[in-house]
Amino acid sequence: MANVSVLTESDIRALVGLGHDELTAIEAVYPLISEAVGSMPPIQRLDVPEHNGEIDIKSAYLPGFDGIAVKISAGFFDNPRRGLPSLGGLMLVFETETGLPAAALFDNGYLTNIRTALAGAVAAKHLARADAHVVGIVGAGMQARLQVEAVQLVRDIDQILIWARRPEAATELATSLTRELGIEASVVASPGDTVTTGGIVVTTTPSTEPLITKAMLRPGLHLTAIGSDAEHKQELAVQAVIAADVFVSDSRRQSKRLGELRAVHDAGLDRTTVELGEVIAETSNGRNTDDQITICDLTGTGAQDTAIASLVMNRARAQNAGQTIAT
Amino acid sequence: MANVSVLTESDIRALVGLGHDELTAIEAVYPLISEAVGSMPPIQRLDVPEHNGEIDIKSAYLPGFDGIAVKISAGFFDNPRRGLPSLGGLMLVFETETGLPAAALFDNGYLTNIRTALAGAVAAKHLARADAHVVGIVGAGMQARLQVEAVQLVRDIDQILIWARRPEAATELATSLTRELGIEASVVASPGDTVTTGGIVVTTTPSTEPLITKAMLRPGLHLTAIGSDAEHKQELAVQAVIAADVFVSDSRRQSKRLGELRAVHDAGLDRTTVELGEVIAETSNGRNTDDQITICDLTGTGAQDTAIASLVMNRARAQNAGQTIAT
Repeated sequence: MANVSVLTESDIRALVGLGHDELTAIEAVYPLISEAVGSMPPIQRLDVPEHNGEIDIKSAYLPGFDGIAVKISAGFFDNPRRGLPSLGGLMLVFETETGLPAAALFDNGYLTNIRTALAGAVAAKHLARADAHVVGIVGAGMQARLQVEAVQLVRDIDQILIWARRPEAATELATSLTRELGIEASVVASPGDTVTTGGIVVTTTPSTEPLITKAMLRPGLHLTAIGSDAEHKQELAVQAVIAADVFVSDSRRQSKRLGELRAVHDAGLDRTTVELGEVIAETSNGRNTDDQITICDLTGTGAQDTAIASLVMNRARAQNAGQTIAT
Repeated sequence: MANVSVLTESDIRALVGLGHDELTAIEAVYPLISEAVGSMPPIQRLDVPEHNGEIDIKSAYLPGFDGIAVKISAGFFDNPRRGLPSLGGLMLVFETETGLPAAALFDNGYLTNIRTALAGAVAAKHLARADAHVVGIVGAGMQARLQVEAVQLVRDIDQILIWARRPEAATELATSLTRELGIEASVVASPGDTVTTGGIVVTTTPSTEPLITKAMLRPGLHLTAIGSDAEHKQELAVQAVIAADVFVSDSRRQSKRLGELRAVHDAGLDRTTVELGEVIAETSNGRNTDDQITICDLTGTGAQDTAIASLVMNRARAQNAGQTIAT
């Protein structure tokens, strides 16, 4: 009844990555989220307690995008004992006009990594100082690496400062980034040492306790927090969030529930928040002066999945990539 | 990272149908639902108003089944103008122990049709009189046909009585059933004429107003209502539901929200309800005497999807059916 493109992770890696067109596609979703056009239902969560697993399902419809993505993410935390990765998943794409299945993207989480990295670049593009050239990274996982690569799309970076809980992981990442990007990368002794006057910091950890405090902030800093995406996670001290001149969120509602605003509200405090889409659409102010401190909290949205998955679908069709199944 | 079976509708039709093993698989889920083992989150619904469409996502984890199904059903009601079906969808199956993707079942809704028909047969098996031999059908769509075929797995049927809003559709179904099953099938003048003493009736319509009233009930009747699966639907008059000697539901919670108990509660009335799983497990009484009137309200559950999809996955592997994609 329909022709469905079936793509493996290697097919998908050949089609999309950290490029300018991908950045533009992700940038386009934030004003739509803020104007509440389209639909983005609450996450469906299926618990599999006997196997220490959970399956999360996100979906979003955005007018103007050719596809509707349904993303199914699996986290099965006993998998490493079997030599399998804890995290996986795939995306399905449906035709926006007819609901017919259009593509099955067996990406093993690659597209989530890409769209998350690009979200960080979008935040830096609109909030970091134009002359920002130092990136501090807290954490040394997949996103630590990808955030550095993505921010190069929007700023000329010449120095990378890395802190991670495990120093050997930080050293390994620094060595690898210097070799691959040709940029000086060094390991620093504390999360605060990743912060520079006028620089950029991205926090990328699953921390449940604050790593960045108010005392660590410096004039002109832009900080993006991407770690907290669940009720128990937190990377920024409440007073750091309060102290920022401008506080931005991808989704105000999600930040209060899953992101850095949760602890602020739990402390009985309030924090003026603008959405990234309002800054992009210039209906709210982002940074006004070089001295201001800006913080952006990214919790992740199904809208980003729909944007990146639509791009994959369209490129796969144009290039006849993957396999086509006549259902 | 994983080997995923990709199956088309014709692959799937060759693997499962209205058979005894399929009936056993569906029957096994109801006690699990009633004991609340496993997980079955609320349906995720994504609205696509600009294209008169909606996407519903159901999932369920049941201990003891090899797969976890995620079913994505699309209803895009402008599709007929384009010569496309309104309803479609697919199921994904994940390994229960690892969460890895195991199968993509592009069934276009076939498996939902099958598991719904088998649910009707399970209800008749446990609630209809042992000597029931006449089946009345209200409606003339796909489920009308499949319910007749499925009930033959559990009772010896020698007469079929059909009523539908469009008489020509009823006539067409009767002719086709007589030809294909070799059973006398006739069209009757009103919904009440489908009811016989000691017989079975299945209502299969999307009606929003009652079709079966208290006055139509006869001693020994078993009636299964499968039409109502949404807040605005109703096939049975409130007083008919109240009058039954035994009222059974696949899921008490869903019947109150989406099924025939909704109107009962809206009328300020109460109705003793047992679950189908309790009847199967013999922890609650079903029919006690040949004269009792039994009614079963089926709203449909993600647990049934997980049962039928696991069966497809296992058979596909055993028979090397479909295509295997290395992700």
